[in-house]
Amino acid sequence: MPPWVVVGPGDDAAVIEPERGALDVVTTDAQVEGIHFDRRFVPPDAIGHRALAVNLSDLAAMGAQPRAVLLSLALPDETLVSELDAMLDGLLALANAHRTVLIGGNITRTTGPLMLDVTAIGTVKRRRVLTRAGARPGDEVYVTGTLGDAAVGLRSLRDGRADAGLDMQPCEARYLRPQPRVRAGVVVGRNRAASSCMDLSDGLADAARQVAEASGVGMNIDAAAIPISDASRAWHALQGLDALHTALTGGDDYELLFTVRPAQRGRFRGARKLCGDVCVTKIGMVTKERDLIVTSGEQVKPLPQGYEHFAGPPTGGPYAE
Amino acid sequence: MPPWVVVGPGDDAAVIEPERGALDVVTTDAQVEGIHFDRRFVPPDAIGHRALAVNLSDLAAMGAQPRAVLLSLALPDETLVSELDAMLDGLLALANAHRTVLIGGNITRTTGPLMLDVTAIGTVKRRRVLTRAGARPGDEVYVTGTLGDAAVGLRSLRDGRADAGLDMQPCEARYLRPQPRVRAGVVVGRNRAASSCMDLSDGLADAARQVAEASGVGMNIDAAAIPISDASRAWHALQGLDALHTALTGGDDYELLFTVRPAQRGRFRGARKLCGDVCVTKIGMVTKERDLIVTSGEQVKPLPQGYEHFAGPPTGGPYAE
Repeated sequence: MPPWVVVGPGDDAAVIEPERGALDVVTTDAQVEGIHFDRRFVPPDAIGHRALAVNLSDLAAMGAQPRAVLLSLALPDETLVSELDAMLDGLLALANAHRTVLIGGNITRTTGPLMLDVTAIGTVKRRRVLTRAGARPGDEVYVTGTLGDAAVGLRSLRDGRADAGLDMQPCEARYLRPQPRVRAGVVVGRNRAASSCMDLSDGLADAARQVAEASGVGMNIDAAAIPISDASRAWHALQGLDALHTALTGGDDYELLFTVRPAQRGRFRGARKLCGDVCVTKIGMVTKERDLIVTSGEQVKPLPQGYEHFAGPPTGGPYAE
Repeated sequence: MPPWVVVGPGDDAAVIEPERGALDVVTTDAQVEGIHFDRRFVPPDAIGHRALAVNLSDLAAMGAQPRAVLLSLALPDETLVSELDAMLDGLLALANAHRTVLIGGNITRTTGPLMLDVTAIGTVKRRRVLTRAGARPGDEVYVTGTLGDAAVGLRSLRDGRADAGLDMQPCEARYLRPQPRVRAGVVVGRNRAASSCMDLSDGLADAARQVAEASGVGMNIDAAAIPISDASRAWHALQGLDALHTALTGGDDYELLFTVRPAQRGRFRGARKLCGDVCVTKIGMVTKERDLIVTSGEQVKPLPQGYEHFAGPPTGGPYAE
């Protein structure tokens, strides 16, 4: 345990020393078997990884550096100890990769599905906090990574299709072990390059809508600019499906959407260099008119609705039947 | 929202300003329908109350003042909005009573039982942290309140017995709406009157064992000193059952056990006056020999085992069948 953990796991509660001169950032997100994942094709270590990743992604969207995590587990009686160990291994490997410490938690039985509820605690300086509410007309809209891959990966895993020799592993990995964009979030918060930020847990259309609503603005997304991987394009072509629609509405990508003021372009260029391997793509503009539109050449369409876990289908993801 | 909540509910995560010069105390505890409560006799507001109470009790056991809470809810499809509202009302009423703010959370569907997972965040000065590990031979052992009432209340609620005119409401209230001993925990931590502390969520025997183990000591509990309410005594007499056994092993009381050094008795007297209506009773001594014993006149018996939720019966509590 690092020195700032005053009391770790095993007592009534954990005690930590806050980062000096910084704010605490806290978030909680649960993963429920049959809603967020299916054990038939999500191995235990990926279950643990995902449960933490979705929370680190939320911290990243606030510009926060993760520090500590609490895990609350509800286990069905038939859970094997080996499965439990693998879940913890998956969670701890991702925690280690982000120098984040498991400081406590809780285990209970359940008569229902396996559930992992993670609370993640991060730290951020007051002037570096990113929210959804800072976008202004004229800001540019950016996303990290490529979009729609996790949705394709989920479908591939679920349907187990060979897909004419396509290598589906990159997309499947995006679904099974998403990499939260912690560094990108911290970096665009740190030099105040970004004016607003949100993660894409429920897809680009949902995030664009939420940021626009919170900021009291609209957005014009350029369809041609949306980053789509070659693997996703090839898979969609084979299926006769629309890769753009998946990129807009597919969930589980855990990339970041953020907006940048034109005046901060210089800072943003500096930040971009610090994002490492993560590609960052300009996909549109913030508008004064509060509409959410996608422009494709001459064509202008309204942004599709995102999906909501709660209103969604029982086996999770936009493709579930 | 108080001024120290920088970003409240509705963004990717909540942002709070830590108390200046203090430590963060964090705990998470879940309540699962069918394991921790039964909706047939626990009304929705009590479900919400209990979900928070068990967490505030954990903070109290560390000497911490609660500040903020996150609620993660897993709702079956058949949940009524009116039930959800009542659960939130119960939780928020208790939060308000302890000047604690709901800063965020998460709602998901579940195919299984209703589950409420609360994360509570408190604050404590470094020198006031209470742990399970500070008991030393010669310390006196204290508990707050009366023990076993919640277990009696659970049985009364579950079996719905009239019980020959006994008023079971006080015991039932202890089960349905336990009052976490926040003030007592803060006060005995504040002037360092206590050397160790733990809450009685899983019963006195369990808490005594945990504190003894963490501190590397034993305990000698005086059976005659254990505080048992008149209602519990009357109910046990009528049933031909042993009130002492229930006081030792019954869970869900959410009282505090703590130890006091003889040299701190003066401080402790001062602290006791600040505990308000909560009675505080000396029930035994910490011993060098690492045995856990209950003394009743000439008789010396080993402390019974406590119960564990995880190994316990499916409908919760020591009396469940």
